[in-house]
Amino acid sequence: MVNPAERLAELDGILMDHLLEAGLLQELPEAYRLVLLPLDEPEVAAKALAWAREAPNPEGWPLVYALFLEGRPVRLLLPGREVEVAPRAA
Amino acid sequence: MVNPAERLAELDGILMDHLLEAGLLQELPEAYRLVLLPLDEPEVAAKALAWAREAPNPEGWPLVYALFLEGRPVRLLLPGREVEVAPRAA
Repeated sequence: MVNPAERLAELDGILMDHLLEAGLLQELPEAYRLVLLPLDEPEVAAKALAWAREAPNPEGWPLVYALFLEGRPVRLLLPGREVEVAPRAA
Repeated sequence: MVNPAERLAELDGILMDHLLEAGLLQELPEAYRLVLLPLDEPEVAAKALAWAREAPNPEGWPLVYALFLEGRPVRLLLPGREVEVAPRAA
C-alpha cells in the first residue's frame, strides 16, 4: 500500500528532475499549484485531485496538471496550453 | 476486461448527460477535442491519453480534459480555465 503523500512527493521530484534535464522548467508559470495525476495509480491520483480541490487558493494561482504514466511524466497541462513532456510513455 | 473504446464512449455519454442536466454545456468551446480521463480506470485513461496524443489535429482544436472518479465526471479542464463538475466525487 503506497502512501499517497509520499508517492506524490516522489513524483514531484521525478517531474522536476525531468523538466530540469529537458530544459522545460521555464515552461512553468511564476506561481502555480501543481496537481500530479499518475493515471495508472488510482489511489494516488484521486488523493492528488481531492487535495487540489480542498486546498485554499487565496492567491488564485493557476493549477498545473502533470499527467504521469508508469511513473514518468508525459504531459503538462498549463493554463491555456500544454507541453508534451516525454515523447512516448511506454 | 473493459474495452477502452466502449468505456470511453460510455463516459462520453455520462459526461454529456451531466453537463446538459447541470446547464454546463455552454462552458465547452465551439470546437474541441475531448480527452476523457477516468483516474481510477488506468487502462482506459492511458488509452484515452494515447489516442489524444496520436490523433492528428490539423485544425488545432483545443483539448478539453474531463477527469472522472468512480465513473462520475468531477472536473473539466478547459483552455485556460477549469469547471468543477460535481461537488464531490465520493
